[in-house]
Amino acid sequence: MDADGEGSGEGVTGHLGDDVVGGDGSSGGAADGVVGVGLLGCGNVGSALIRLVEDHGDTIETRAGVRLEVVAVAVRDVARDRDVPLPARRFTDDAASVVDHPDVDVVVEVMGGVEPARELVLAALEKGKPVVTANKELLADVGKELFDTAESAGVDLLFEASVAGGIPLIRPLRESLAGDRIRRVMGIVNGTTNYVLTRMADDGSPLADALAAAQELGYAEADPTADVEGYDAAAKAAIIAMIAFGARVVAGDVYREGISGVGAGDIAAAADLGYVVKLLAVAEEVDGAVAVRVHPTMVPVRHPLASVLDSFNALFIEGDAVGELMLTGRGAGGLPTASAVLGDLVDAAKNLVSGGRGATIGPLARKPLRPIDEVESQFYLDMEVADQPGVLARIAERFGDHGVSIRSMQQRGIGAEARLVFITHRAREADLRATLADLRSVEAVHHVGSVMRVLGEEP
Amino acid sequence: MDADGEGSGEGVTGHLGDDVVGGDGSSGGAADGVVGVGLLGCGNVGSALIRLVEDHGDTIETRAGVRLEVVAVAVRDVARDRDVPLPARRFTDDAASVVDHPDVDVVVEVMGGVEPARELVLAALEKGKPVVTANKELLADVGKELFDTAESAGVDLLFEASVAGGIPLIRPLRESLAGDRIRRVMGIVNGTTNYVLTRMADDGSPLADALAAAQELGYAEADPTADVEGYDAAAKAAIIAMIAFGARVVAGDVYREGISGVGAGDIAAAADLGYVVKLLAVAEEVDGAVAVRVHPTMVPVRHPLASVLDSFNALFIEGDAVGELMLTGRGAGGLPTASAVLGDLVDAAKNLVSGGRGATIGPLARKPLRPIDEVESQFYLDMEVADQPGVLARIAERFGDHGVSIRSMQQRGIGAEARLVFITHRAREADLRATLADLRSVEAVHHVGSVMRVLGEEP
Repeated sequence: MDADGEGSGEGVTGHLGDDVVGGDGSSGGAADGVVGVGLLGCGNVGSALIRLVEDHGDTIETRAGVRLEVVAVAVRDVARDRDVPLPARRFTDDAASVVDHPDVDVVVEVMGGVEPARELVLAALEKGKPVVTANKELLADVGKELFDTAESAGVDLLFEASVAGGIPLIRPLRESLAGDRIRRVMGIVNGTTNYVLTRMADDGSPLADALAAAQELGYAEADPTADVEGYDAAAKAAIIAMIAFGARVVAGDVYREGISGVGAGDIAAAADLGYVVKLLAVAEEVDGAVAVRVHPTMVPVRHPLASVLDSFNALFIEGDAVGELMLTGRGAGGLPTASAVLGDLVDAAKNLVSGGRGATIGPLARKPLRPIDEVESQFYLDMEVADQPGVLARIAERFGDHGVSIRSMQQRGIGAEARLVFITHRAREADLRATLADLRSVEAVHHVGSVMRVLGEEP
Repeated sequence: MDADGEGSGEGVTGHLGDDVVGGDGSSGGAADGVVGVGLLGCGNVGSALIRLVEDHGDTIETRAGVRLEVVAVAVRDVARDRDVPLPARRFTDDAASVVDHPDVDVVVEVMGGVEPARELVLAALEKGKPVVTANKELLADVGKELFDTAESAGVDLLFEASVAGGIPLIRPLRESLAGDRIRRVMGIVNGTTNYVLTRMADDGSPLADALAAAQELGYAEADPTADVEGYDAAAKAAIIAMIAFGARVVAGDVYREGISGVGAGDIAAAADLGYVVKLLAVAEEVDGAVAVRVHPTMVPVRHPLASVLDSFNALFIEGDAVGELMLTGRGAGGLPTASAVLGDLVDAAKNLVSGGRGATIGPLARKPLRPIDEVESQFYLDMEVADQPGVLARIAERFGDHGVSIRSMQQRGIGAEARLVFITHRAREADLRATLADLRSVEAVHHVGSVMRVLGEEP
């Protein structure tokens, strides 16, 4: 789960209970400038948030004119000591009571998972209480329902922390670039896999070793599937597409390939050609259709994304007017994520007091989604072939049959070990796949090795 | 002037005139959802803005609920054809009439320079008309007066485009990081010098050649002093300090060294040690005091700022909670700058309609400024010395006398050509300067060559 500690097992029950939390008389409504915060979940992010509100409360009041007060916190286990500056009586295991609490003006959801988070967020919005969430799974699964509810209730639903932890994306995209047309957003949105790929490139270590190192550092979970297979990145890609294009996209719409097929040899071969391998989440709008995908990509070493190392995340935005813009930072971790949640929380609180609205994404449009088959990329392919006259001609013919044009070819090794390395011009995925199937039927082609998309030529 | 074409010689007169501009009945007040825009200046940025408003007007209306209409444009020469989709009658050479125009709800100032921009901006704010400006010189010189006026009038004064063209800085810092404590912002904020330094590093070319190449590409002006000597960067550094720390800083407060003293040899020596030379603008707050400076800096190759190449700009932000955050993009150019202006304009227009306030920086505080003598950095020094026993001891003693501690030393060459290269631990500028003076009096030290600050150890 990309080491972001969302909820960190701090799920809470969603049923209504009789317990009354808070009630120590210290909180007030938004009317007196004090904005009561109800927290759902208190894992890494939630406890970091409580500390930030305590430490920076005065600064926030000076700058933004609102006083934040955490009045109720829903946790699974009220008995556990959380080392946060908050009286024990403000904790409850009854999450619905936090949403209902009369002194809670804004609800912050950092419990993770779809249910009961969905139900609680909907309940808050329907009561007219703004919601701040860091829950990518929730947004990528049922975002549309939540945004529609927020829209018809006229209430803020802010989620800056859900995509790339502390990196601001939503305000830059929705406000700073409000008058621009975004063409594409490419992101390194999973710190675990970026750490693994950086280790593989630096030390030549195989994936398994690099992953073990990531686990030792706490960057990867014991079960790293969500990261390694690209599920985490796919959920974030869906959210990016919603923000950038206002399109209805759920995680299931995202074409997804993880890094489990990337070997040390691929990374070395890429380096040889002047590329670095990165797991990219790509969302683009071409001719009114939105394409969203996650896959390993060969990025030219001089491209800004190539220099995003270790567990850093980055978002590379291309717009008609702004040109190229990249935002880099910590995509995970309790404190950076809490920082993003707090930015949203201050925004929601200011809006409550002033009556304005935050950087919401408005109603989502049902835009056509471009299937992966029709997406165009450059491709890298390597294959072992018989080193005999006429082989290249036969291979080149197969490319040509499917309209895939070869940009460069290199032979590596000779004799029985001859390998051919190709980079194509831009080609449709379907055409490339058909070419591959054909190539495998050529007798002189012993083995088609790696196939990887290449970031390069633009249409 | 960093190739940003601010105003591009399109200054306008500031006196009141009798001409009535607009008046073609096509504009309305903010009340009907149409927000009238008055433009002061119509150079690269202004004309790009007019085209963006025309091209993206529908999108802006859908997303933000406001219709923008450029109702009056002040230019110096109304006869000149500007190739913008606007009737000639909306142009005037009487800038004050644009501010006064009854259909102008928001004023956009892209004329550049301090006067008459200052006078016009103040007049607009006093009339309760929000102002969007891209004018770094204006803000770095008289920012405090403008912000105070905006604050007491309760009117937006937005200036995202003034620091680094299309890179969003103000929203991320003032909103997304509203609850964080910013410790330091380091920026590559001048595209011309970054292009020059990149060329020097890539080709080994001397500064003069790289600068000539920049001039040929239109990145540098015929008189490159403002860029090369760091004046442009210093103005932006002052604005960064205002945004990040809410401190009253003017361009004249900024310690400034340009790149004219950086030779190809320095860049090669830096590369040898694993560093890249960049012109950095640095604003930091330490113990309540703000230090702002611009100087060439050796940046470790693995640091994100090292990979900001060519004419790209970047802002590297360090905060208690968010950790490290970097924003990279086009810092200049008519279109990226117009994109930033338009983001502000949409914000101001939305606020006009909804009654909210934009990402203003509030009243500036009179924080103590830390003089450059008291700033601490690591330093690189090289010197030619007599290659004889005991020299190093005598040199090391001079460092020690002033409390400057040596982190690494390398001898390059032998005999008469021996050079010693030092990197110190963090030391006060004043102590380093005293050490240098002392070293020059050591007989065996033939010549102290380059001295450069090194980005590395943190306190």
